[in-house]
Amino acid sequence: MPIINHVGIAVNTLAQAIPLFEAILGQEISGTEEVEGERVRVAFFGEGPGRVELLEATDPTSPIARFIAKRGTGLHHLCLSVPDLDQAVARACGEGAELIEPGIRVGAGGHRVAFLHPATAGGVLLELSEDAAA
Amino acid sequence: MPIINHVGIAVNTLAQAIPLFEAILGQEISGTEEVEGERVRVAFFGEGPGRVELLEATDPTSPIARFIAKRGTGLHHLCLSVPDLDQAVARACGEGAELIEPGIRVGAGGHRVAFLHPATAGGVLLELSEDAAA
Repeated sequence: MPIINHVGIAVNTLAQAIPLFEAILGQEISGTEEVEGERVRVAFFGEGPGRVELLEATDPTSPIARFIAKRGTGLHHLCLSVPDLDQAVARACGEGAELIEPGIRVGAGGHRVAFLHPATAGGVLLELSEDAAA
Repeated sequence: MPIINHVGIAVNTLAQAIPLFEAILGQEISGTEEVEGERVRVAFFGEGPGRVELLEATDPTSPIARFIAKRGTGLHHLCLSVPDLDQAVARACGEGAELIEPGIRVGAGGHRVAFLHPATAGGVLLELSEDAAA
């Protein structure tokens, strides 16, 4: 199973950011999706594990808008694939990591996911995604 | 070909950072390497494309030490795999991106690589790596 599920990049606008990544990769985006709960619009390069996600806020209260206001655009989060999320979370918490509320939830594609607080995970906003073994 | 070649994470010390990632992934590091030119010590999770790299400065003048002094620990760079580096760089520069000196060079494993300046690439330190087609 690949380790990296996806990388999320905070951008000001998809319209501005997509052309650069299309130019680098020599391919068009695989699709877009609006996640209302997160107030974010996502453009994907690649599908499934190993994809790159460009993240645009749809609202000034979006976590992405707040991230950009504080840190600027750029790398936002790293999602790692794990075969058993409960075990991974238990082991991570044993190393001092803490989950961001509401803890384990169901994310895109029906996968169970959880986020570790960056202050407890080396400054990285780490998402863990339980993927079926490849 | 997977899009993501690797993700580099700036850490204060490998000794401190490795246990958390080993706990999350349920696997030990795949290896370590010291890159003298970059004054950095690297620990790998996974091998080849799709790996995660933890980056520890070996010297206060290391780019990693300077990054941490300015931004704190966390996501440092994203390396994307491209089939033809010259074409990818030409297209990226056509979208306003600029290469970091010395431009195209030979990196780890003999792959040709280049870095785009974050200020010209949406705030992301983007490495492009020319990988043989999988």
